[in-house]
Amino acid sequence: MRKGLFITFEGGDGSGKTTVSKYICQKLTEAGYDVLYTREPGGSEIAEQIRTIILDVNNVLMDSRTEALLYAASRRQHLVEKVLPALEEKKIVVCDRFIDSSLAYQGYARNIGIDEVMKINQFAIENHLPDLTLFFEVEPAIGLQRLNGSRAQLDRLEKENMDFHNKVYAGYKEVCEKYPERIKIIDSSKSLEEVQKASFEVVMKLVEDNV
Amino acid sequence: MRKGLFITFEGGDGSGKTTVSKYICQKLTEAGYDVLYTREPGGSEIAEQIRTIILDVNNVLMDSRTEALLYAASRRQHLVEKVLPALEEKKIVVCDRFIDSSLAYQGYARNIGIDEVMKINQFAIENHLPDLTLFFEVEPAIGLQRLNGSRAQLDRLEKENMDFHNKVYAGYKEVCEKYPERIKIIDSSKSLEEVQKASFEVVMKLVEDNV
Repeated sequence: MRKGLFITFEGGDGSGKTTVSKYICQKLTEAGYDVLYTREPGGSEIAEQIRTIILDVNNVLMDSRTEALLYAASRRQHLVEKVLPALEEKKIVVCDRFIDSSLAYQGYARNIGIDEVMKINQFAIENHLPDLTLFFEVEPAIGLQRLNGSRAQLDRLEKENMDFHNKVYAGYKEVCEKYPERIKIIDSSKSLEEVQKASFEVVMKLVEDNV
Repeated sequence: MRKGLFITFEGGDGSGKTTVSKYICQKLTEAGYDVLYTREPGGSEIAEQIRTIILDVNNVLMDSRTEALLYAASRRQHLVEKVLPALEEKKIVVCDRFIDSSLAYQGYARNIGIDEVMKINQFAIENHLPDLTLFFEVEPAIGLQRLNGSRAQLDRLEKENMDFHNKVYAGYKEVCEKYPERIKIIDSSKSLEEVQKASFEVVMKLVEDNV
């Protein structure tokens, strides 16, 4: 690789992004690339401590802007401790969720505003935007159905009602329109095999441009 | 009071701001005003959890921007849970440290930049800037001498070296120049009685303008 590549996977709960991102990492590794698979807080002890506060079901008094600032803080620490050192070593960094999650969840669904949440995230990541972002587009009802089939316990954010998940989806669509150069939309209503194939093609285009 | 008043006290460690802010509250209470004395995290359980992470001496890997975002998050939660409800009830809110601490400590002393740190704090406080801020100006060496005499244990930030405390002082001076309308400088090298008198006069001018 001529330089490290930073690729993020985005989408609602149950959109398939986690399954597919792991598949992509496996394929890239098999092809001989040096890959770091991560997700926030990603093993950073400080970022982990911050996430514990965000996801604690007892923290019902948490203000939306507090939540957004905590996500940005956790993101910053994970970026500095994990992502940037790997990019420095010219690895391909695949990250499950990043800045666009905050834009969709806190910016749009929590009504703070996408541009407003972008400001604090720019403070957090400085100029380290992903080289490529894949958005897994699927109706929230379908996504959650998938999720409920596979997991026993939902955390505080997953417990939000259907209206919230629909807002997140609408938020992601607006974020995609705002950053069409960076974000590629993957139709995640299709079969897993089709979604994996489409995702791998998009990723390989970027990788081959940078070999 | 025609409306609530929000007054903040700023300065380096050992500048006397805590002693004097408590004195001011006592005097205002004696004069019949309804006063809330607070400091971040101020009894907000969520803000308290955030501060625990910031001040933990084991968190040596904490990035400066993470620290700034965590302070902003703690500030937001304290503002929403404690300060705004009291202002709504037309109280005089006296707060030991607020936004200017972040501008001086993280913005200037940690080299992030005052305007950059102001952005995330504006996100945190929206339009709720203090009506009045008192900055207690005293050479850091004198302030720390006072502190060491009165306290057994120093936290992670207080343990920073003299160079850092001097930078904080220089940062505060720059912040004072940036916001001369809001921030009044109190010469805190003088005797406690003189500092208390000067502070009370400045506070009463604001209070009387708003009765």
